[in-house]
Amino acid sequence: MPFQSPQDAEDAFYDALESGDAQAMEQVWEASADIACLLPMTPLLRGAEVLEMWRAMFAQGASVDIQVGHLSWVQGGDLALHLIEERITPPPDPGRPAQPIPPVYASNLFRRGSYGWRLVVHQNSPVPPPPGMAPGMAPPGPGRA
Amino acid sequence: MPFQSPQDAEDAFYDALESGDAQAMEQVWEASADIACLLPMTPLLRGAEVLEMWRAMFAQGASVDIQVGHLSWVQGGDLALHLIEERITPPPDPGRPAQPIPPVYASNLFRRGSYGWRLVVHQNSPVPPPPGMAPGMAPPGPGRA
Repeated sequence: MPFQSPQDAEDAFYDALESGDAQAMEQVWEASADIACLLPMTPLLRGAEVLEMWRAMFAQGASVDIQVGHLSWVQGGDLALHLIEERITPPPDPGRPAQPIPPVYASNLFRRGSYGWRLVVHQNSPVPPPPGMAPGMAPPGPGRA
Repeated sequence: MPFQSPQDAEDAFYDALESGDAQAMEQVWEASADIACLLPMTPLLRGAEVLEMWRAMFAQGASVDIQVGHLSWVQGGDLALHLIEERITPPPDPGRPAQPIPPVYASNLFRRGSYGWRLVVHQNSPVPPPPGMAPGMAPPGPGRA
């Protein structure tokens, strides 16, 4: 069942992530060497490496409770880029106090083909660390409250 | 002089960054509220905030020596996404030993309008920190040498 819109493909991506479903995840990505995936603070994966990574992750039983908020959409012709914010709720661990995980930015690039809309690029960027923990890579900016 | 290709706009972006030229930087970006900029470990800036940030940075005399390497290009119709690696050479400082700066990933989304190709989204992602310094955000993956 091809995805009729970038949003359909995006919903399926996060559903697959939440349920840890490698087969559903494979359906989300374009079947091409162009695909690329950049999770927070990991090396860039491309082509076949992308699905290998998801299969390895899900084989370990990984699944996440994730909420997404849309920040910006840019669409033109057969490409669409969604900029979003991902908030992950960690699984409860009775042995440790609950620790909030800071949200991460993500951009998802979708492309339409004869198979409908599919994910081509998923890129995460960490949000800024708390003051005093910055790794010193950030150039000066106006900041935001 | 409109940019005839995404690459022309990208070259102009890095030229403006290297020379600290706020006016040239303004010419590179699409004149719209859709634009978004995410430098390493900084909050997301959108619309008018983007050029304000560059003006503030360049007003402080900021300029960088930056080399870029292309990793992946996806183009369709009037949109193009370039995934690249940026390597910054820090300015020499006689008082401190030279410290290499780790490269960062970047994706640049360009859109073609009546004014030619312009930059719409610039997103940086830090590369993984050295072992032992990881902030713990990375899910398990197959890793890469």
